[in-house]
Amino acid sequence: MAEKKINDTFLKACRGEKTDYVPVWYMRQAGRSQPEYRAIKEKYSLFEITHQPELCAYVTRLPVEQYDVDAAILYKDIMTPLPAIGVNVEIKSGIGPVIDDPIRSLSDVDKLGEIDPESDVPYVLDTIKLLTKEQLEVPLIGFTGAPFTIASYMIEGGPSKNYNKTKAFMYAEPKAWFALMDKLAEMSITYVKAQINAGARAIQIFDSWVGALNVADYRYYIKPTMERIFSELKNENVPLIMFGVGASHLAKEWHDLPLDVVGLDWRLPIQEARTMGLTKTLQGNLDPAILLSPWEVIEERAKEILDQGMQQNGYIFNLGHGVFPQVNPENLKKLTTFIHDYSKKAKVSI
Amino acid sequence: MAEKKINDTFLKACRGEKTDYVPVWYMRQAGRSQPEYRAIKEKYSLFEITHQPELCAYVTRLPVEQYDVDAAILYKDIMTPLPAIGVNVEIKSGIGPVIDDPIRSLSDVDKLGEIDPESDVPYVLDTIKLLTKEQLEVPLIGFTGAPFTIASYMIEGGPSKNYNKTKAFMYAEPKAWFALMDKLAEMSITYVKAQINAGARAIQIFDSWVGALNVADYRYYIKPTMERIFSELKNENVPLIMFGVGASHLAKEWHDLPLDVVGLDWRLPIQEARTMGLTKTLQGNLDPAILLSPWEVIEERAKEILDQGMQQNGYIFNLGHGVFPQVNPENLKKLTTFIHDYSKKAKVSI
Repeated sequence: MAEKKINDTFLKACRGEKTDYVPVWYMRQAGRSQPEYRAIKEKYSLFEITHQPELCAYVTRLPVEQYDVDAAILYKDIMTPLPAIGVNVEIKSGIGPVIDDPIRSLSDVDKLGEIDPESDVPYVLDTIKLLTKEQLEVPLIGFTGAPFTIASYMIEGGPSKNYNKTKAFMYAEPKAWFALMDKLAEMSITYVKAQINAGARAIQIFDSWVGALNVADYRYYIKPTMERIFSELKNENVPLIMFGVGASHLAKEWHDLPLDVVGLDWRLPIQEARTMGLTKTLQGNLDPAILLSPWEVIEERAKEILDQGMQQNGYIFNLGHGVFPQVNPENLKKLTTFIHDYSKKAKVSI
Repeated sequence: MAEKKINDTFLKACRGEKTDYVPVWYMRQAGRSQPEYRAIKEKYSLFEITHQPELCAYVTRLPVEQYDVDAAILYKDIMTPLPAIGVNVEIKSGIGPVIDDPIRSLSDVDKLGEIDPESDVPYVLDTIKLLTKEQLEVPLIGFTGAPFTIASYMIEGGPSKNYNKTKAFMYAEPKAWFALMDKLAEMSITYVKAQINAGARAIQIFDSWVGALNVADYRYYIKPTMERIFSELKNENVPLIMFGVGASHLAKEWHDLPLDVVGLDWRLPIQEARTMGLTKTLQGNLDPAILLSPWEVIEERAKEILDQGMQQNGYIFNLGHGVFPQVNPENLKKLTTFIHDYSKKAKVSI
């Protein structure tokens, strides 16, 4: 099938190639910070938006049109594939994902099923097709939650501050833990491959909360599973991006994995990551709280990060975590323009 | 006044001196994990416990007697001094500290008063006197919350996940921010000096949530205030300990400050901290979630940490954060015995 011609600056940067300017996108760029999104939410439920491809594609596309970002990211929750494997999850307003029957034992893990994306989440694939075949002029990023982060919701029963139950399960029931990691790895691989087949041109793996673990635990309980996921996805020939919050201490471990891009939150400066030996493409890492500041502060901080990022090829501007609902969309528009203009000039002057 | 003779192993370790064994205490060692504490809570409110010196001293002393730890820490909340400066704070069960009129402007900051510990929190000082003059045979650690962490509650109005409002205030209102830091530094210094006068033999400063900031922001918005606090307390000649969660990226900044002990959570291994150039006494850093594991796992992990910590003088065993209510006190007792016995043997064998 002939592929639609798109702006491939983001994909080039993922592969560490030279680009004319620094590409930019924002985690959670589509959503509650946008008045158009809030207007849609008054007419449709979250379920309706994510299950109707036209609506979901519209929401995914909005920030691309408004902010001129270089990539779109599918408007979905990391919980989307869970009902397919037998986990009842409900997104509760003001709380987050809530799961009624948390995992407690190996037999609970054994009961989990497998996902068949074509029959379980056809609306996800239809949304991707609609966007990539017709609507978008930038690459669409597909994504999945990583096993630790998904498992944390399944074991805690919802969002957590300390992940005590998750860690206690991991330490006390290693057999059940690795069985769960295997099932969730399988789910992620199948789900992501279907997204790629439908047209996703890059994949971001969100291990949002894995920074709660120390390095030794990451190496033993998590890394082999991540190794497997990235190895199996490597053959799909799309860039693979890793991301988590508060995980600076794991950045070197991520860099070891067969992936293309390491996403950083604001705690590890790009410059320091380079010094530590992270030679792969880096993505990040403006503290999203800075978007709540006056424009002069935003520009100053963005410039500092850009100056570090542009020291070698393989850099993508992003936030260190998702856009907050309180952010003024005007600031995201100005920021994108600033990143593009500043990096174009800087690249020309080299 | 003649000082009571106490076990000074902990104080020696704070000063980097040779000790016969590795001293140990646990953050939040007194509290909900202890059945005796839960029994008291059925008869008395939190307010009654903290305001009656005999009750509060009993709760503070319990873990020393039960676990044989080498230091006691005053049973108090970091919010304790706030009403004295005009902040109405309520500790809500299952939520944490809630503040009705959050700080919004410089004029809100200007309204804050000063603490006079003798008249505002006499029960704190009476508890310390009772413990140190009569009851304890180990040093009592006094403490205070650091300005960023206290400010985060005052600005957010309660606990927070992202500290957005705090950061937005810091970036947008630098004048008000630094005025607030000054007021809170003043409060902490006065409060802590009174604790030392009453008999506290070491001070831990809890900047629990400052790890939410990147290094550049820490240097600009926080470090000068911490520099002032530690410099003023230095003259008191008691060891000064710094602690925060998820703050590995700030450990070097802390080490620069005129303090004695850097407390680490589990994300930065002791060995790596030494390699980074942290030559001062280190305190930590077992992940408290490991206490929910079978004993074999706890012992194995404690041993790994001890082996790293004992490579030079100046090491105190602790958790990387507070004890969880779900922890079995039996495990803390066994852990203390293990730390003492293992380090005694290891020190002899050198």
